[in-house]
Amino acid sequence: MNATERSIVEQFPFWDGAPEPAIRADASKSYVVVGCGTSYYLAQCIAATMNLRGIQALAVPGSEWTHRAQAYVRDEKAVTVVALSRSGESTETVQAAERSRSVGIEVIGITCDRDSSLTRHSDHVIFAETHPQEGIVMTSSASLMVLMALRFIGVPVGPDVTREADRVMRELDAAIVPLLSGRSHFVYLGSGPLYGVAQEGSLKLQEMSLSYTQAYHPMEYRHGPISLVEARTLVVMLYSPEMLPEETKLVAELRAKGAAVIGLGGPGDLSISLDAEEILRGLICLPALQILGERLAVSRKIDSTAPRHLTKVVLVA
Amino acid sequence: MNATERSIVEQFPFWDGAPEPAIRADASKSYVVVGCGTSYYLAQCIAATMNLRGIQALAVPGSEWTHRAQAYVRDEKAVTVVALSRSGESTETVQAAERSRSVGIEVIGITCDRDSSLTRHSDHVIFAETHPQEGIVMTSSASLMVLMALRFIGVPVGPDVTREADRVMRELDAAIVPLLSGRSHFVYLGSGPLYGVAQEGSLKLQEMSLSYTQAYHPMEYRHGPISLVEARTLVVMLYSPEMLPEETKLVAELRAKGAAVIGLGGPGDLSISLDAEEILRGLICLPALQILGERLAVSRKIDSTAPRHLTKVVLVA
Repeated sequence: MNATERSIVEQFPFWDGAPEPAIRADASKSYVVVGCGTSYYLAQCIAATMNLRGIQALAVPGSEWTHRAQAYVRDEKAVTVVALSRSGESTETVQAAERSRSVGIEVIGITCDRDSSLTRHSDHVIFAETHPQEGIVMTSSASLMVLMALRFIGVPVGPDVTREADRVMRELDAAIVPLLSGRSHFVYLGSGPLYGVAQEGSLKLQEMSLSYTQAYHPMEYRHGPISLVEARTLVVMLYSPEMLPEETKLVAELRAKGAAVIGLGGPGDLSISLDAEEILRGLICLPALQILGERLAVSRKIDSTAPRHLTKVVLVA
Repeated sequence: MNATERSIVEQFPFWDGAPEPAIRADASKSYVVVGCGTSYYLAQCIAATMNLRGIQALAVPGSEWTHRAQAYVRDEKAVTVVALSRSGESTETVQAAERSRSVGIEVIGITCDRDSSLTRHSDHVIFAETHPQEGIVMTSSASLMVLMALRFIGVPVGPDVTREADRVMRELDAAIVPLLSGRSHFVYLGSGPLYGVAQEGSLKLQEMSLSYTQAYHPMEYRHGPISLVEARTLVVMLYSPEMLPEETKLVAELRAKGAAVIGLGGPGDLSISLDAEEILRGLICLPALQILGERLAVSRKIDSTAPRHLTKVVLVA
């Protein structure tokens, strides 16, 4: 078992060990959730979840919040910033926190490193320890940052959620390899809070296995991108309970055009049930999406512990 | 010259003929800009531009606004909806307008068809006539909807802008064919209001030429997606004046990894100047991005007037 696989399949004790955050989101405030790469996609999931819980929130990439907050909100001083960074050292996220505080904006840092540039620029820190063998590609830390954010929002995440995520990952792992054969184009679809998770799944597979990947809102997929669907396409559909009829119809259309579909929470060539409300589905699906990336990397003889062109912390000189 | 090419290169008289909208955006309101496919990406550009002009706005896909507005805004009744649809018949956009009005939300429709389901569900209609030969792939209508939205926001768009867009398109067209040879992976990068334009360029090329395309915020590209860059990659960089140093550095890094770069407003293997402030650059670049799609389609012997799996109006039964 390489370090990547270990940090995926051994992540669940870290979930159960993550502490309750000392601070809770306040529905009278407006939040901007910032991050880069994986952390930005997690921020999209978190912001949508906050809105669904009645807390106004918007996700913005770290670089954008640093350089051009005014393209996203009219009054930046009316918001609280939640900044996600595993290492607490990603240049754009640290700059976003630093700049925010310099103009008087409250900053809450969510991180897996307690002593970092981000924590020094945060008014409050939400921290959980991640798997020590996690490498360049974010796996257990991604799940943990979502878990911490859900608790911050007031969504209870207990051992039942851990067990469900473990089951979903194992069920996908047991069935996935035959579905990967001959596939070279990977599409992730998800709605509402699952859109960010679809994007994270897409990024994960791309960087682990050097594959062409894309992510869309399910109904958006019919407006152009569907032109690329063929027998080399594998679609990962993250079903939402309230969109199930539309998403089921879309999946039937994609299969008719030759795609294989992994249905998480609904029908597909491989269908895995999700015993959870929508607001928890993103977190529950993350380990399954991570192991999918690792299995494809292995089948392509690519070493996921040393992804091409990437470093563990992305710094801008 | 096929109908697609005609609707691209002959679009400029329609720009000059577009009427001033009868209604203007109101900085005391909050806007949600909805659309599907191309129109959603244009909505992203328009929402960012509105924010930059001090008018709070957020882009949401039509399907998402119809089914789950609460994942995007805490109080949907506090917003005004701007709905974009060329035909005025895209199911999800029409539903978004209809549902919005049914709960008392004001709807402004931007369209190239004066008499449609969207206009019947709109309180105000902003209309411009598009090229009569435009087919399934949106070209001149996409530019016209952005032009109308800019005027709605209060950004003057005169004949000087038309001339600049025409020049940029011709300059790209004259130099593009040699750069396309051997490229099979296409990446579009843009920041702020140019992010939606990058996404639209990416979708255009994908549906016209059946190519693998992706779009990102420039600084986000270093956080994972850069792992795919190699000699088959062509990057279209939409430079922002205020991000020029960072974006120039990124382009140098991508070229060092083997990518060819088209720089619109900054350096690249092909570099085309943009004599315009950022807020107008998206509109000015659209025809160039359209002709790029057409030229690649021709080089791949694909008929852009009949894109695979697509119809002119996307209906959901």
